[in-house]
Amino acid sequence: MPSTDTPEDIGLLTPGWAGSPAEAATGDAAYVRAMLDAEAALTQAQAALGLAPAAAARAVRAAAADTARYDVRDLALRARTGGNPVIPLVADLTAAVAERDPQAAEYVHRGATSQDMLDTATMLVAVRTLEPVLADLGRTALGLARLAAEHRDTPIAGRTLTQHAVPTTFGLKAAGWRSLVLDAHDRLAAARAALPVQLGGAAGTLAAFHAFAEARGEPASAAGGEPAADGGEPAAAGGEPAADGASEAADLGLRLLAAYAAGTGLAEPALPWHTLRTPVADLGGALAFTAGALGKVAADVLLLSRTETAELSEGSGGVSSAMPHKANPVRATLIAAAARQVPALASVLYGALAAEDERPAGAWHAEWQPLRQALRLVAGAARDAAELAEGLRVHPDRMRHNLDATQALVVSERVAAALSARLGRAAAEQALARASRRAAEHGTGLGQALLEEPAVAGAVSERQLRELTDPTRYTGSAAALLERALRRTGPVRPSP
Amino acid sequence: MPSTDTPEDIGLLTPGWAGSPAEAATGDAAYVRAMLDAEAALTQAQAALGLAPAAAARAVRAAAADTARYDVRDLALRARTGGNPVIPLVADLTAAVAERDPQAAEYVHRGATSQDMLDTATMLVAVRTLEPVLADLGRTALGLARLAAEHRDTPIAGRTLTQHAVPTTFGLKAAGWRSLVLDAHDRLAAARAALPVQLGGAAGTLAAFHAFAEARGEPASAAGGEPAADGGEPAAAGGEPAADGASEAADLGLRLLAAYAAGTGLAEPALPWHTLRTPVADLGGALAFTAGALGKVAADVLLLSRTETAELSEGSGGVSSAMPHKANPVRATLIAAAARQVPALASVLYGALAAEDERPAGAWHAEWQPLRQALRLVAGAARDAAELAEGLRVHPDRMRHNLDATQALVVSERVAAALSARLGRAAAEQALARASRRAAEHGTGLGQALLEEPAVAGAVSERQLRELTDPTRYTGSAAALLERALRRTGPVRPSP
Amino acid sequence: MPSTDTPEDIGLLTPGWAGSPAEAATGDAAYVRAMLDAEAALTQAQAALGLAPAAAARAVRAAAADTARYDVRDLALRARTGGNPVIPLVADLTAAVAERDPQAAEYVHRGATSQDMLDTATMLVAVRTLEPVLADLGRTALGLARLAAEHRDTPIAGRTLTQHAVPTTFGLKAAGWRSLVLDAHDRLAAARAALPVQLGGAAGTLAAFHAFAEARGEPASAAGGEPAADGGEPAAAGGEPAADGASEAADLGLRLLAAYAAGTGLAEPALPWHTLRTPVADLGGALAFTAGALGKVAADVLLLSRTETAELSEGSGGVSSAMPHKANPVRATLIAAAARQVPALASVLYGALAAEDERPAGAWHAEWQPLRQALRLVAGAARDAAELAEGLRVHPDRMRHNLDATQALVVSERVAAALSARLGRAAAEQALARASRRAAEHGTGLGQALLEEPAVAGAVSERQLRELTDPTRYTGSAAALLERALRRTGPVRPSP
Amino acid sequence: MPSTDTPEDIGLLTPGWAGSPAEAATGDAAYVRAMLDAEAALTQAQAALGLAPAAAARAVRAAAADTARYDVRDLALRARTGGNPVIPLVADLTAAVAERDPQAAEYVHRGATSQDMLDTATMLVAVRTLEPVLADLGRTALGLARLAAEHRDTPIAGRTLTQHAVPTTFGLKAAGWRSLVLDAHDRLAAARAALPVQLGGAAGTLAAFHAFAEARGEPASAAGGEPAADGGEPAAAGGEPAADGASEAADLGLRLLAAYAAGTGLAEPALPWHTLRTPVADLGGALAFTAGALGKVAADVLLLSRTETAELSEGSGGVSSAMPHKANPVRATLIAAAARQVPALASVLYGALAAEDERPAGAWHAEWQPLRQALRLVAGAARDAAELAEGLRVHPDRMRHNLDATQALVVSERVAAALSARLGRAAAEQALARASRRAAEHGTGLGQALLEEPAVAGAVSERQLRELTDPTRYTGSAAALLERALRRTGPVRPSP
Repeated sequence: MPSTDTPEDIGLLTPGWAGSPAEAATGDAAYVRAMLDAEAALTQAQAALGLAPAAAARAVRAAAADTARYDVRDLALRARTGGNPVIPLVADLTAAVAERDPQAAEYVHRGATSQDMLDTATMLVAVRTLEPVLADLGRTALGLARLAAEHRDTPIAGRTLTQHAVPTTFGLKAAGWRSLVLDAHDRLAAARAALPVQLGGAAGTLAAFHAFAEARGEPASAAGGEPAADGGEPAAAGGEPAADGASEAADLGLRLLAAYAAGTGLAEPALPWHTLRTPVADLGGALAFTAGALGKVAADVLLLSRTETAELSEGSGGVSSAMPHKANPVRATLIAAAARQVPALASVLYGALAAEDERPAGAWHAEWQPLRQALRLVAGAARDAAELAEGLRVHPDRMRHNLDATQALVVSERVAAALSARLGRAAAEQALARASRRAAEHGTGLGQALLEEPAVAGAVSERQLRELTDPTRYTGSAAALLERALRRTGPVRPSP
Repeated sequence: MPSTDTPEDIGLLTPGWAGSPAEAATGDAAYVRAMLDAEAALTQAQAALGLAPAAAARAVRAAAADTARYDVRDLALRARTGGNPVIPLVADLTAAVAERDPQAAEYVHRGATSQDMLDTATMLVAVRTLEPVLADLGRTALGLARLAAEHRDTPIAGRTLTQHAVPTTFGLKAAGWRSLVLDAHDRLAAARAALPVQLGGAAGTLAAFHAFAEARGEPASAAGGEPAADGGEPAAAGGEPAADGASEAADLGLRLLAAYAAGTGLAEPALPWHTLRTPVADLGGALAFTAGALGKVAADVLLLSRTETAELSEGSGGVSSAMPHKANPVRATLIAAAARQVPALASVLYGALAAEDERPAGAWHAEWQPLRQALRLVAGAARDAAELAEGLRVHPDRMRHNLDATQALVVSERVAAALSARLGRAAAEQALARASRRAAEHGTGLGQALLEEPAVAGAVSERQLRELTDPTRYTGSAAALLERALRRTGPVRPSP
Repeated sequence: MPSTDTPEDIGLLTPGWAGSPAEAATGDAAYVRAMLDAEAALTQAQAALGLAPAAAARAVRAAAADTARYDVRDLALRARTGGNPVIPLVADLTAAVAERDPQAAEYVHRGATSQDMLDTATMLVAVRTLEPVLADLGRTALGLARLAAEHRDTPIAGRTLTQHAVPTTFGLKAAGWRSLVLDAHDRLAAARAALPVQLGGAAGTLAAFHAFAEARGEPASAAGGEPAADGGEPAAAGGEPAADGASEAADLGLRLLAAYAAGTGLAEPALPWHTLRTPVADLGGALAFTAGALGKVAADVLLLSRTETAELSEGSGGVSSAMPHKANPVRATLIAAAARQVPALASVLYGALAAEDERPAGAWHAEWQPLRQALRLVAGAARDAAELAEGLRVHPDRMRHNLDATQALVVSERVAAALSARLGRAAAEQALARASRRAAEHGTGLGQALLEEPAVAGAVSERQLRELTDPTRYTGSAAALLERALRRTGPVRPSP
Repeated sequence: MPSTDTPEDIGLLTPGWAGSPAEAATGDAAYVRAMLDAEAALTQAQAALGLAPAAAARAVRAAAADTARYDVRDLALRARTGGNPVIPLVADLTAAVAERDPQAAEYVHRGATSQDMLDTATMLVAVRTLEPVLADLGRTALGLARLAAEHRDTPIAGRTLTQHAVPTTFGLKAAGWRSLVLDAHDRLAAARAALPVQLGGAAGTLAAFHAFAEARGEPASAAGGEPAADGGEPAAAGGEPAADGASEAADLGLRLLAAYAAGTGLAEPALPWHTLRTPVADLGGALAFTAGALGKVAADVLLLSRTETAELSEGSGGVSSAMPHKANPVRATLIAAAARQVPALASVLYGALAAEDERPAGAWHAEWQPLRQALRLVAGAARDAAELAEGLRVHPDRMRHNLDATQALVVSERVAAALSARLGRAAAEQALARASRRAAEHGTGLGQALLEEPAVAGAVSERQLRELTDPTRYTGSAAALLERALRRTGPVRPSP
């Protein structure tokens, strides 16, 4: 065991995502990796625009790839002074580049601000983490589609405010779960596709890149456009921007932004978003949605797994330390725990939209851990949900048993309608009320009790009554709704 | 004044939305109105499918329109027993219909559950409330577009972690605000367009409608399809649903759902969503986003309005009771207050996704007030934002004054680049550091101090230095970014 | 019904507290009443210190008592300009006083700031609202104490992660609920007792009162202390404060604060707390605690009320609109809904601690509604909890029935211990595992199945096995714990 | 650098607490250490009561102390099956004990449930983490006391809603900050002192310990009391608990609970609190309070550090990667970031009070990370606050400069009072309004402008006006309030 002086978190309190791809994709090392990727892409983009030598870009990429050089713990401790880890990382990367190519060192992080790199890295981490998450949601949806199809006509008690209401089917329940999972998948996939690169420089104007171009004697806004007036003189790059869209396309900053985005594989933002935090807020919302959607599935599984109900059980329940014979719904439990946490984390991210100035003193820093934690919780919940959906054991006999226990209740709506049409509403309701009471007292079925009502016996045959009081025949549009819901395409298709 | 025994909330603590259209659109009376609309639409849809007489639909609509009959306070007190206001409202509506047409009374609320009506009403309230909200966001975006265009080249200090960084333009700031407001508009408009009608009956299967059709001797799943086996016998409507899409289209429940949706103007859901709460969660997320987006604008306005900064002031500041001469940024304050609240409310709504069973015991009830409150806070903030954007007074002179106070800082990045190209990096940085120190100590400009550096004086002309140290010439891609951002179409166009 | 143009909230969506004393105590009228009380107390305190004529204090008190003069809706609309309702209320109160005594009018609100009045009023509202809340918590605790005593030995399945574990008693469960309710009561009572008056003037220095004293030619810091140098000259009241505790006691501001606190019945704060929000944060925490504590009771009641479990039922369940025969646990549902909301509201209040300057632009305004809403939700939940505790129907037979269903499981821990002592651990565990499996398969009791194990039959008598496998004999320290817990004194004693 | 396959979090994104004692005290290894401590204490307590051999307790303690045996990562991965880390840890500890003393192995974790150990370990971690936190809060309070004393009479603009209001003193501001910090200290210290040990066994009845005593032929409720009726027969230990307090004291479970608590140094709970989560909720509330209290200090420091205001600066500001000359208020920024997160985490903990059954499926698991994260955020914020308070640089000259900029505003309240007494209210207000306008337009002081008003010049001498308009003479009770506040005793005394 590491000594108690060591600060590592390596999964002890987070069984939901321990050992998952998402865990590795969100660890400190993954962030360092992503920051180095961002630095390499930035120098590369500058080289592509002639702002840096190609050799410098190569040197940065090589030094960034040598991940063994970077000591995460040391970076963490040095991050404290400036309040973010980019500053020490840039120092180390610069040293590593200088060893390879001293000339190249000055092109490291050139023109960028810490937030450019950390935001870009965070987006890369998110994109990489969401890949297994989306796959797990696809597996979940597929597993639920199979359950729904298989149990299209399996009757189960519909329950409202804890009490049996009227029958439904387990298939419709599973189809409903799937629709939520697909909603979550849609929202996460859309958020992921929009995650942008960050680049704005010190205050979001990309001005430093103009300064470097100036210093090289190049007009910043023209690729082959009109030359600057007088050679070495600083061109009025920032002060006199292009007046129309055509020349805007020629703006150095915008071209750099596009090249940088292309190099990272992330989306190109319309504006630097240092304090326009749409990507983070949208991602937070999609994560909270996903946690909640999976939380609905877990809530139902937990209730239907209760000892007294026992209609479902997890494929491989957890083992209790105190009760070795007990099989616990551990997957559903961990999902439920995630669903309790992510909405609060998302509230921090929505709150961080109100980020002042060109870089805020707190709101940005307050995003880092909640976003990472939300990604992990959702990743863990998605993995658990996939295992749950694929392994869920359904007990139709038990569903039927429970449904029969309150037969009189769950079909009374239908019986009332049928009898009203024959006896009039008042007479029908009185007969039904009497019969329900007798059925409950004597434990006979409602059908039998109704037959003892002379008015009923005179109007309806025993066979009709048997059908009318059969809960499995009273599921309304359940199958039609299920079929419509299942026609919605999921991200993963069943293998043939 | 009402006596202190009266419970009314009529805006005393909510200046943000007092007197606004959104206030009236979300009051208790508006909910009653919407519930009555839902009831009328339901009977109408049943009549359209032959499940109820046309006369009954007319009677219900007439009784629902006679809003003076319904005592909101009395409904509220009677709602306590069952935990929701639909139960007493149905009783009163039934009585009102019976006075008009005794036969029609049995068709009131027929086949529905309370949640069908309250959810539908909530969606109607949301749609109606969002109309002025979206309009106000449009006005806000338009006002900000004007500010951005007008101040395209107005220099202002870019500030990061509370300190001056490099210059930017007020136009780019305003264009950034606008982009957030448009993001919010997009999200709210999309959420609004998707808000669905609710109809599922007791447990989401629409079974009661099948029962009524059966009782009338009609097969529930066939519009002119094969007749039920034996006339008056209950058809196996629920138990044997149609096997393919074609017959699914003929399912009674699905046809009713479509007709009901059409009657209310809301979207038709794929499934009853009693415990599949995508619409509420999505709306909650969009509202939190909007509050945060407007909160960003407010945060900046508040900072730039501070006495020492004074670069902005609200068109009509509030009056202080203790300090009559003081003009407070009241609009921005109220927006900021909203931005602190809505994320927490949204977290409750995301949490309510984990709603168990076919109707949950608590999660649904926990949505009502947070959703209403979030709608109101956002509506108030949007109104305030529109007034703010339209009336904001900008003080370019003061922006320039503040920017000049730290001239040495805000252009040092550019000067360093220019001098490095001429003197080499090390010499340039030393000269710049010395000159910055002297400039700060003696209050001279950085340009002057640099000229006192022999190496600099030998390499750069005074005119060049003047330009290099001019903060208004160091705004990089600000104008190009602004122009690109302003080409994004907003919901409201400037009048010609 | 009010027309849909009217904005009233009068309880339609809040069945939890509709019609309760807390509802009236937190309505807009109650806030106006409390603000008027605060104004009257302030003038009275000034009169007591000789800063205002006694006649002025009388006039203000009389005008404040004439509540019919104040139009809450009109105040609400006029509050918008300045962002708070105190400004228009002071105008109306001043006019009312002037009608009675023109001289007195200038003493209205004299020296105070809006926040002084609204904060004091909020504290008064909280104190008044918590009175019925604390009483309801007392009733709840008493009801639970009765249940615990009555069911001291009623066995019930202990359930962990949804599964039966080992037996416990319903009495211990109820005693645990009571201990949480008492914890909540303690926290709310402590928070209530500490709620302070607010008075600081424009920026928390009480300077205006010094100015008034100066203007009257009185040194502000001396009651019989050394006279100011030269009569009408402004004394250096603020600039040269008393140097020690003795003269500090003589400080005008501190004396006024004490007099004002005494007049309102609220606590005297050590400092004006315009941006030192301990009272609001503490109250928010205590409310969140209470909602959660009651939420625990509700969560258990809901689970034990489920149709399949049926061990508890609410005294008077709510009625379903769709399912007339169904009795819903409405009280527990509404409590559970409150428990989902208050923690989020408290998070807003904790967040508002970070209130900048001497009065913040948003953080203060963001407290108003969440605090009011939290008070109401908790008040409603406490009322519902009292009704629940007093009316809860307990079904010991059903508890025993459910417990027997898993007899083999719930006592296996005990049987294993007993057999291990006789057979050795390994042999005991093997025999128990085999017997448990057979008992589950054949539906026989575990005792019978164990007798079929030769090793067991040779070591333990049939009578011993019957006792060992009797779940009602395996409740450990349940009764001892219950008795210890019940000795904790509650706020309400049972009537003799 | 660890490869990107490694999941460690070692502080990269958490500069607030990287390298702090609290970081090590809350790492995974610290939790393992605390769980081992809990296991050792449990066996020890059983040995003390004769339920386990003394040798077993020694063996467990020795094996638990050999921390190098336990592989935290391996435990984390194995925790997944059962959903908590106690299960694999018990297996490893059992193996370690067996190596030492095979007989002792069966006494490992005997009678306990996973939650007993993890809850106890969490409380130990909290106690250990809060020690440096409380010390840092003490240092903070002491630093602020020194600032307050030193700046007792340093005038500064009081600001409300972003605008200058009337003067106050920086000393009063610092005294107010200190009072919040002391409030936080009090709340955390009280919560810490109450943190209890957890022990209840499978369902909170401590029944297994009774079973072990039975199996050894000892009556569970008597230490030397009356012997069980018939030797080896199971005594009715659970079913017939002691009827009064005296015998309750003799209850085996209660005695064990007391011994276990004594062995850990934690408080003894009245009841097992598996689902009575007062300790966690209270701790969460105290942490949210502390984060908010420090957040207030940070909010003010950030505003007063802004470039335009510049009244404060952090002792050692952070360095910007883009702007090397810039000194950022990094400590305040990190505190502000913490204050944005902890309230949301506390809302999860308050929500977890609603934990169903005897062990909940999700609510408990949802506490682990938020509580740990809240402890860390607060620990980091406390460390930063101590550094901030001890190193804060105060610029009284700048405070005076800013105050003078709005002289006319900040003293108008006082001037109005003085002139009203001489000229009558109406004439005074008119003269003041005119003079204020002229002073603002012409940049002359208010005193000069007032002298130009004939009525004023006739009533007040120039010297009187100079004093009346001197903002440093208008600080009311600031010093008296400060002195009273500073007499509140803090946890740390200044060294002599």
